[in-house]
Amino acid sequence: MDVISVIRTKRDRGELSPEQIDWVIDAYTRGEVADEQMSALAMAILLNGMNRTEIARWTAAMIASGERMDFSALSRPTADKHSTGGVGDKITLPLAPLVAACGAAVPQLSGRGLGHTGGTLDKLESIPGWRALLSNAEMLNVLETTGAVICAAGDGLAPADKKLYALRDVTGTVEAIPLIASSIMSKKIAEGTGSLVLDVKVGSGAFMKTIEDARELASTMVGLGTDHGVRTVALLTDMDTPLGLTAGNALEVRESVEVLAGGGPADVVELTLALAREMLDAAGLKDADPAKALADGSAMDVWRRMIAAQGGDPDAALPVARETQVVVAPATGVLTRLDAYGVGVAAWRLGAGRARKEDPVQAGAGVELHAKPGDPVTAGQPLLTLHTDTPEKFDYALGALAGAYDIEASDTAFKATPVVRERIA
Amino acid sequence: MDVISVIRTKRDRGELSPEQIDWVIDAYTRGEVADEQMSALAMAILLNGMNRTEIARWTAAMIASGERMDFSALSRPTADKHSTGGVGDKITLPLAPLVAACGAAVPQLSGRGLGHTGGTLDKLESIPGWRALLSNAEMLNVLETTGAVICAAGDGLAPADKKLYALRDVTGTVEAIPLIASSIMSKKIAEGTGSLVLDVKVGSGAFMKTIEDARELASTMVGLGTDHGVRTVALLTDMDTPLGLTAGNALEVRESVEVLAGGGPADVVELTLALAREMLDAAGLKDADPAKALADGSAMDVWRRMIAAQGGDPDAALPVARETQVVVAPATGVLTRLDAYGVGVAAWRLGAGRARKEDPVQAGAGVELHAKPGDPVTAGQPLLTLHTDTPEKFDYALGALAGAYDIEASDTAFKATPVVRERIA
Repeated sequence: MDVISVIRTKRDRGELSPEQIDWVIDAYTRGEVADEQMSALAMAILLNGMNRTEIARWTAAMIASGERMDFSALSRPTADKHSTGGVGDKITLPLAPLVAACGAAVPQLSGRGLGHTGGTLDKLESIPGWRALLSNAEMLNVLETTGAVICAAGDGLAPADKKLYALRDVTGTVEAIPLIASSIMSKKIAEGTGSLVLDVKVGSGAFMKTIEDARELASTMVGLGTDHGVRTVALLTDMDTPLGLTAGNALEVRESVEVLAGGGPADVVELTLALAREMLDAAGLKDADPAKALADGSAMDVWRRMIAAQGGDPDAALPVARETQVVVAPATGVLTRLDAYGVGVAAWRLGAGRARKEDPVQAGAGVELHAKPGDPVTAGQPLLTLHTDTPEKFDYALGALAGAYDIEASDTAFKATPVVRERIA
Repeated sequence: MDVISVIRTKRDRGELSPEQIDWVIDAYTRGEVADEQMSALAMAILLNGMNRTEIARWTAAMIASGERMDFSALSRPTADKHSTGGVGDKITLPLAPLVAACGAAVPQLSGRGLGHTGGTLDKLESIPGWRALLSNAEMLNVLETTGAVICAAGDGLAPADKKLYALRDVTGTVEAIPLIASSIMSKKIAEGTGSLVLDVKVGSGAFMKTIEDARELASTMVGLGTDHGVRTVALLTDMDTPLGLTAGNALEVRESVEVLAGGGPADVVELTLALAREMLDAAGLKDADPAKALADGSAMDVWRRMIAAQGGDPDAALPVARETQVVVAPATGVLTRLDAYGVGVAAWRLGAGRARKEDPVQAGAGVELHAKPGDPVTAGQPLLTLHTDTPEKFDYALGALAGAYDIEASDTAFKATPVVRERIA
């Protein structure tokens, strides 16, 4: 087996054999296949595609590159969720304790943000004392005692994916559906969950800009999960507009706590409940009532125990940015568009996100929304509040918001997009 | 300017801007763009192509990455030739002194063989004492005093190409016509010749397997040369069958000397004269008579002076392999096919070529042909003689010759391919 013949096979639009896939993933993980060879192969895959058989084998080879977790000894059925990432997407925070409160075990191995999309761990780290890094034993203990755990994935899970993802990030080969699908699913399957709900974002603030691409990614991932014995469902959800009224780390924790307290923005509540129902259904808990668990405080109880079990103080005051600046509505009328990508980039520039993996994030930075598309606005009223510890970045952030919203005289042309656009199972 | 946006432009079938091309070639040469990024770009170019404008700029940027030579002070017009490489292609050896004997200056910067195609420098190094590596001053001196020089290209010419070629070799991105054309032409234009004749091989033993690919490569290169003020002509020549009756280093030197002595195989003489006429024509020496220069010994005189000027002894006995093995004709009839690729691989396996750049070659190894397609053969007569210093490789070499020739009862179905198939100017 040699790497040039593997590259040539895909370059010339052939199908990679199971042996070629197993060999190239293993050899790359061991360092025998060089980065410049893998990136040429990744580009050939991006441009020439992989069929279902190839993607399944590629995923299996990445799972086999590392350890697998096993939650079968838990007394509850496990339910996991993955979002492809968006702006203001804090859903994991209220969702994990909510689903746990309804009887499932929710092992939520999460990541950090890169670019304009936020990361769940960055958000939770704004809670004083909270730790993302747990040993496997600690993780199981939090899961057993509280029903949910949100923590960093260990280095042992799918190391091939870790290496390949870092390579794709610097070689323009991120946007390949077979590679995105296998990257997500190899980690989720190695985690050993029994069921999985995928939140595939579609819109300006998401990776997938069109419903067609989102559908293809979703059905590829659902197929992979099902083939590996994981009950998998995908919701395609809107990401043309930010979720909720905040984008930023501590800002999103505050909003999540509002949802757990029975309040919060309607779209966040709607999506949290929709995903909770899918997770409970996939876990076999069809009679659970997540709306009740939100209303009666049981989800909030799990949240508080879960945060405390990882060293966090659920009652501590959250960090606040040193400076704010208000953006006012330039006209009276109806806000007909508020672009998720523009808001995401603004929050990132204010310090909520990072450009490189090793950069720190500001806990208090971000963007607060005072209106959502469909709302009437009056000239001069606050539209957005920008938060940062580095006020010299205000102008830079404002640049990302130029053209990011439209105010029209009437709402006749405005059509609201539903939060959940499609379901793929 | 950042490399990911350059990669994305080509990945998404866009046209690279002049600024993008200049930047990426320069940044890659300086090490700012990493190998894994350049290989992803090379694969995107291979799959999505480049237009004429992009190829011209890419070539210019590679020329600009290093020094340029200048032969304008010479009293004679310069004429250069490049072959895309084949099996038994020793033409440079008789051609350079022949064209010099007719009045042109022939600066022939050549390469070594890799894979199944031989290298001009490897062949000449089988002459005791001969040196491929000359300083620029030595090179000019040999050229001034003898009219021709065949030597290694210095490290200063098109360093971007040197780095990119080595990368393409290990990443399955060699077979991209824009990259092949710009690689060849950047070196030839940096060499500073006034005219250039391209021998574009087509057939099983060549890089270009089809006449369509060969035509595209040839016309791309002719366009690039013309745009840079170099009078450029291409001949598309047959490489389904090996050239002449030898493939190997010392074996080919011996055959070249036969041609310079007025003998040698008909196809080698025909192609040498055809290329000589094109070179002399392009150099403005329309009245020269290369056939006469072969017949009257003046080409041989230049050869002897040129070899001696680089330390070689033109009268020394050439190395001979320690062992030979004869392959006999299995039937009586007409040899209708003798595959260039099979013969090339056999010669390589016998030790005439190298698998990696740092490997040595055997001077005496190779394959001798006793018949060419169209010749009648009798069962049991010698068809090929294999030469090697490592007889344990005979079986390995014979493996490459399985199915490499056909003998048929009559020559009714046999149609000879002309040596020169097309001319592109």
